[in-house]
Amino acid sequence: MTDAATNMRLKLPITCLILEIILIILFGTLVQYNYETDAAEWHNQTEHSDYENDFYYRYASFQDVHVMIFIGFGFLMTFLQRYGFSSVGFNFLIAAFALQWATLMQGFFHGFHGGKIHIGVESMINADFCTGAVLISFGAVLGKTSPVQLLIMAMFEVTLFAVNEYVVLSVLGAKDAGGSMTIHTFGAYFGLMVTRVLYRPNLDKSKHRNSSVYHSDLFAMIGTLYLWMFWPSFNSAVTAHGDDQHRTAMNTYYSLAACTLSSYSISALTAHDGKLDMVHIQNAALAGGVAAGTAGEMMLTPFGSMIVGFLAGTISVLGYKYLSPILEDKLKIQDTCGINNLHGMPGILGAIVGAVTAAAATMEIYGAGMKDVFPLVADGTFTASDQAIRQAISLAVTLGIALLGGLIVGFILKLPLFGAPPDSICFEDSIYWEVPGEEPSHEEQLTVVRTEETVKLNN
Amino acid sequence: MTDAATNMRLKLPITCLILEIILIILFGTLVQYNYETDAAEWHNQTEHSDYENDFYYRYASFQDVHVMIFIGFGFLMTFLQRYGFSSVGFNFLIAAFALQWATLMQGFFHGFHGGKIHIGVESMINADFCTGAVLISFGAVLGKTSPVQLLIMAMFEVTLFAVNEYVVLSVLGAKDAGGSMTIHTFGAYFGLMVTRVLYRPNLDKSKHRNSSVYHSDLFAMIGTLYLWMFWPSFNSAVTAHGDDQHRTAMNTYYSLAACTLSSYSISALTAHDGKLDMVHIQNAALAGGVAAGTAGEMMLTPFGSMIVGFLAGTISVLGYKYLSPILEDKLKIQDTCGINNLHGMPGILGAIVGAVTAAAATMEIYGAGMKDVFPLVADGTFTASDQAIRQAISLAVTLGIALLGGLIVGFILKLPLFGAPPDSICFEDSIYWEVPGEEPSHEEQLTVVRTEETVKLNN
Amino acid sequence: MTDAATNMRLKLPITCLILEIILIILFGTLVQYNYETDAAEWHNQTEHSDYENDFYYRYASFQDVHVMIFIGFGFLMTFLQRYGFSSVGFNFLIAAFALQWATLMQGFFHGFHGGKIHIGVESMINADFCTGAVLISFGAVLGKTSPVQLLIMAMFEVTLFAVNEYVVLSVLGAKDAGGSMTIHTFGAYFGLMVTRVLYRPNLDKSKHRNSSVYHSDLFAMIGTLYLWMFWPSFNSAVTAHGDDQHRTAMNTYYSLAACTLSSYSISALTAHDGKLDMVHIQNAALAGGVAAGTAGEMMLTPFGSMIVGFLAGTISVLGYKYLSPILEDKLKIQDTCGINNLHGMPGILGAIVGAVTAAAATMEIYGAGMKDVFPLVADGTFTASDQAIRQAISLAVTLGIALLGGLIVGFILKLPLFGAPPDSICFEDSIYWEVPGEEPSHEEQLTVVRTEETVKLNN
Repeated sequence: MTDAATNMRLKLPITCLILEIILIILFGTLVQYNYETDAAEWHNQTEHSDYENDFYYRYASFQDVHVMIFIGFGFLMTFLQRYGFSSVGFNFLIAAFALQWATLMQGFFHGFHGGKIHIGVESMINADFCTGAVLISFGAVLGKTSPVQLLIMAMFEVTLFAVNEYVVLSVLGAKDAGGSMTIHTFGAYFGLMVTRVLYRPNLDKSKHRNSSVYHSDLFAMIGTLYLWMFWPSFNSAVTAHGDDQHRTAMNTYYSLAACTLSSYSISALTAHDGKLDMVHIQNAALAGGVAAGTAGEMMLTPFGSMIVGFLAGTISVLGYKYLSPILEDKLKIQDTCGINNLHGMPGILGAIVGAVTAAAATMEIYGAGMKDVFPLVADGTFTASDQAIRQAISLAVTLGIALLGGLIVGFILKLPLFGAPPDSICFEDSIYWEVPGEEPSHEEQLTVVRTEETVKLNN
Repeated sequence: MTDAATNMRLKLPITCLILEIILIILFGTLVQYNYETDAAEWHNQTEHSDYENDFYYRYASFQDVHVMIFIGFGFLMTFLQRYGFSSVGFNFLIAAFALQWATLMQGFFHGFHGGKIHIGVESMINADFCTGAVLISFGAVLGKTSPVQLLIMAMFEVTLFAVNEYVVLSVLGAKDAGGSMTIHTFGAYFGLMVTRVLYRPNLDKSKHRNSSVYHSDLFAMIGTLYLWMFWPSFNSAVTAHGDDQHRTAMNTYYSLAACTLSSYSISALTAHDGKLDMVHIQNAALAGGVAAGTAGEMMLTPFGSMIVGFLAGTISVLGYKYLSPILEDKLKIQDTCGINNLHGMPGILGAIVGAVTAAAATMEIYGAGMKDVFPLVADGTFTASDQAIRQAISLAVTLGIALLGGLIVGFILKLPLFGAPPDSICFEDSIYWEVPGEEPSHEEQLTVVRTEETVKLNN
Repeated sequence: MTDAATNMRLKLPITCLILEIILIILFGTLVQYNYETDAAEWHNQTEHSDYENDFYYRYASFQDVHVMIFIGFGFLMTFLQRYGFSSVGFNFLIAAFALQWATLMQGFFHGFHGGKIHIGVESMINADFCTGAVLISFGAVLGKTSPVQLLIMAMFEVTLFAVNEYVVLSVLGAKDAGGSMTIHTFGAYFGLMVTRVLYRPNLDKSKHRNSSVYHSDLFAMIGTLYLWMFWPSFNSAVTAHGDDQHRTAMNTYYSLAACTLSSYSISALTAHDGKLDMVHIQNAALAGGVAAGTAGEMMLTPFGSMIVGFLAGTISVLGYKYLSPILEDKLKIQDTCGINNLHGMPGILGAIVGAVTAAAATMEIYGAGMKDVFPLVADGTFTASDQAIRQAISLAVTLGIALLGGLIVGFILKLPLFGAPPDSICFEDSIYWEVPGEEPSHEEQLTVVRTEETVKLNN
C-alpha cells in the first residue's frame, strides 16, 4: 500500500491524460453550441434582442457559483495545517475534470437533441453544481485519498449524480433548484459511505496533522465567506427568470443571516468555557444556504427562510459537537470536514422544508407565477399534495442512490491500483507536492537585516 | 471587569438567541415580498418582460457590495497579529445581525406600505449599506470590545442610521447614493465618539499586540483590494437605472485610481526613510471611494473625480501620520483602524464635494436626466443652490446625530453587563476563540520528513 | 547604484505626483462622458430603455476583469517568500497608474470624437486590458526593479500597447477580443526583452530569497484561482453582445478545464519523483485562457477549445521545466515568474489558433452572425483567407513592436536616475516597505497564555 501511495509518478499523469483524451473525443462527437451560443442559430431566430440571451440572466450567477466551487470549497478545506496545497490543488483538479464529465453525463439525460448535447450557460451552471456534489464528498475523505482515487470517485459520482438528478427532476417532477437533495444530500451521503468503506482503524497515527494552525484557519475563512456570500446566487442560478431568481436569492440571504446567529450562539453555548470554535463558524454558518436549496424558490417568505436557517445552524453545530464523534467511534465514519453536519443533515432538512412548502402551495399565493415554480401543479397534472409527496419520495430516492453508490464506489477505490497514503502520513502535502519550508529561517532574516543596515550606512 | 470580559459562556449565546428570535417574530409580523419578488404580484402586472425586474439591474452590484461587507471589511481588519479570528469572525456576526435589523429599521422609514415592509434587492443593498456603517464604527473599537458589546452597538447604531438616513434623504431631500454622509461620515463619527467614551488609559499594556505581522498584512490586503475594486459598484448600486449607474461607477473608478497614486506618494514622502507604510496603502488608497460617495452620481466628470480622489488620498495619509497620534494623546480617542482617516475626513470631503457639485447643476448639463439625479430641482421644488444648501445641512445633521448617538451608546456599552476585555489582553483572539498554535512545531515537521524518508526507502 | 536603489524618499513620491498631475490635466482637457454615461445625452436619445445601456451588458464582466488585474495578478506574484508587499503593492500602484494612462492612449487611437475622448464601461475594460499587459511584463522583472522603474516602464509600455493595438485591430482588421496577441504576446515579449537588457550576472546573491514558502504559495493560489475562474469574463468582456459574449465565455471555460488536466499531468510526469510542482499549477493551468484569447469568440467549438487548452497547458509546463533554465543560462533572460511559459508561448499558440479558425470561417457556420465576428468578411472586404493572413501578420507585428519596444525601454530603465536594488537584496520587501516581523515571538505568545491563565484563575 505504501508503494502504491507514493508512486504517483505514472498513475496520476496517465489517469489525467486518458480521462482528458476521452473527454475531448466525446465532446468532438457529441457536443454542440445551443441556439444561444451558436452564431448562425442565434441570428436566424425571429425578432429578438441581444438582452434576451440567457447569458445576461445567468452569467453573473454562474460566476458566483464558479467562485464557490473553486475558491469556496478549495479554501474551506485549507484549515488543515499541512494539507493546504492538496486541499486547494486537488479541489482544482477534480473540479476541472468533473465539470467536463458532468457536461456529458447531464447532457445525456437532459439537453440531448437529435443525438447531440446542446450547451450554454445553464448547462455550465449545472456542470458546476454537479461538481459541487463531488467536492462535498471530497470533504469526507480529505487527507486520506490519493488524487487518482479522487478522480475515479469523481467519474463515478458524476455519473450517479446525473442519474439521480434525472429521476428526481424529470421522472418524479420534483423541484430542487438549489440542490438540497440532488447536490447536498446526495454528495454528503455518497461521501460518508465512501469514507465508511475506506475506514482506517489506525488513522490516529496522523492525528497530530488532522488539525488547524492559526493562519490555516484564516485561509479557511476565505472559503467560508465566499460560500456564504454567493449562496444566494447558487440557489437562484437556474430558477425561472424574473421574480423567481429574485425571490430565491432573497430567501437564501435571510436564511444565511439567521443561520449565522444561531451558529455563533450554539457554538458558544456548547463549549465548556464559552469560547467560539472556528470549525463551527467555518461550517455551520453555511447550513442555512443548504437548507434553503429546495424551498428557496418557493413562496417560503423571509420569515420562513429565517426559521429554516436558524434550525439549520443549530443542527449543524450540534452535529459537529455531539454527532461526529459518535459516527466516528460507533459507525466508523471518519468524516474529515464534517460534511454530515454541513451538507447531510441540513440537506435533509431542506428537502423536508421543500415538501412542506410545496404542500402549502395555492393559486392564491402563486397566481400566474405557479407555472414557473410548480409547472405540473399549474397545468393540473398534480395537486399541491402530490407535489409534496413527489418531493418526499425524491429525498428517499436520493438517499438510496447516494448510499448504494457510495458503497460500491468505496469498494472500487480500495483497489490498490489507485493508491492511498499510509495511515502515518495522511493529511500531509509532501507526499504529493514539492513543499517549500514554512518560512524564512531566522538566520536568513538576520542576514537580510544586516545587509540592509550595511546598505544604509553606505548612503 | 475581568470576570465580565471572559465570561461569554452565557452572555453571547443568549444575546444572539434573543436578538434572532425577536427578528424572526418581527419579520413574520411585518415583512412581505415586494411586487418584484412575489410570484402572484409579478405575474399579475400588466405587460412586462422578465428583464425589467430590478434583480437584473442591481443584483450583480449587490453581490459586489456583499463582498465588500464580509470580505472587504472583515479582512481589512485582520492586520492585527493576534486578532484575525475576531476581526473576520465578529465582522461576520455583527454584519449578519445588522443586515436583518436594518431591513426592519429602514423599512419603517421607507418601504412601509399598508403596515407591511416590502422588500427586494434594493432593500437588501440598503441593509448591507447600513451594516457598512456599523462595521466602520467597529474599526474604531476593534480589539477592545466584546462581541456582546458589538451586537448592542449594532442594534442602536442601525436604528440611529435609519433615522439619520430618513432625515437626510427624505426630509431634507439630499442626494447621497454612495453614502459619503449617511454611511461613512455617520459610521466614523459615531464610532469615534464610542471609542472616546470607552477610553482606556492603560491600553499600552496591550501595545505589543496592537500591530501587524508579515502575513497578517497580506491578509489585510485582500480586504483592501476587494473594497477598492468593488467601490464603483457600491456607489452605483442604488442610483437610478441607465446612465446614472454607469456614470457613478466610472467616476468612482477614476477617483480611486488617482487616490492610489497620491496615497503612495504622500506615504513615501512623509516617512523618514522614504519607505512605504502598509497602513497607508491598506487604508488611504480607499479614501477616493468614500469621497466620491455623494457626487459620484452627479456630472462630476472623470476630471473632477480624479481631483477629489487625489485630495482624499492625501488627506487620509496625512491623517494617519499626523492627526491620529494627536487625537489619541490630546482627545483620548483610541481609533484602532484609523477610521477618521479612511471614513471620517474623506466622508466630510465627499459631502462638501456633493454640495458644490449640486450647486453647479444646470439643465444644460443634465438635460432630461435631471429628474434622475435631482428630482426636486427637475420638478422646480428647489433651485440648484437650494439643493446645495440641503446637502450641506445634511452633513451637519449627520455629524450631530452621529456624535450624540455615539456618546449615548458609548455610555450604554460601559455597563459591566456587556463585558469588555481587560486592558492587558486587548487585541487577543484567545479570550473569545479556541485558538490553535501558530504553525506545526519543528519537531513535528522533522518527524514528517523522517517518516517520508523511511517510506521512500521502502519503495 | 546602491544609493539610487534605496533612496526612494523623493524619487517615488515625486514621480507619482508628477504623473498624476499630468493625468488630471489631460483628463480635464480631453476626456468626456460618452453618450451612455452623460445625463443629458442618454436622455436625449430617441426611444430606448435603460437596459439597453451598455453598462448592463458589460459591467459584471468588467468587475471580473478588475478582480483579475488587482487580486489575480497581485496575488499570483506573492509566491516569493519576502516580496509579498511589493508584489501586491506595486501591482496595485502600477495598475492604478496604467489604467488612467491607458484611457488616454487608447482614446487617442479609438474613441476620439471631435477632439475629445469619449469614455464608458467599454473603455474601462480596455484600460484594464492594457494594464494587464504591463502587469505581465512586471512578472518578468519582479523583485529586480524599483517602483520608479516600474512606473516609467508602464508609461512607455501603455503607449506602445495602444500603438500596436491600433495597428492590429484598426489598420490590419484582425480580431483579438481576449488579447492573445495584443495583451499576452505583447506583454510577454516586451517584458522578456526588458529583463534581458536589465540582465544581472550576480543575481544568485539573492537566490535564497527567490523562492516560495508554504503560506506564500497559498496566497499565490488565490491569484491563480481568480484568474482561472474569471478568464471566461476576460475573453468575452468586449466581444459583440448576445451569442458572441455567451460563446466566448463558454469556449474559454472548456479550454481552461482541459488545460488544468494537462498541466497536472505533465507536471507529475516530468518531476523526478512524480510530485506536483506548485509553480506549474499556479501558472500553467491558466495557459488555456491565454490561448483562447483570439479564437474564443469564433466558432471554435468546445471540442476545439479543449484541444487548444490541452496543448497550452502542456507547452506551458514543459516551458517551465526545460525552456526557462535554458533562456536564463544561454540567453541571459531572467524571467522571475516565467511569463514566457504562461503568456508568451500560449499567446503565440492563441494567435495561430485564431488565424486557423478564421481561415475556416464560412457563411454556413456563422450565418448572419458573421457580421459580429468578422465584419470585414461579412461585408465582402476580405475572404476568410484574407482574414487569416491578417491575423498572422498581426502576430508578427505584435512580436516586432514588443521586442523593439522592450529593447528601448530596457535601456531607458537602466538610467541610474530611476533606481534599482543591488543584486544582494533583490526579492526583498524591506528596501521599500516598513516590514513587521514574521510572527509573534514565542515569549510573547507565552505571556499571552500566562496572562490568560491568570485571568481564568481569578474567575
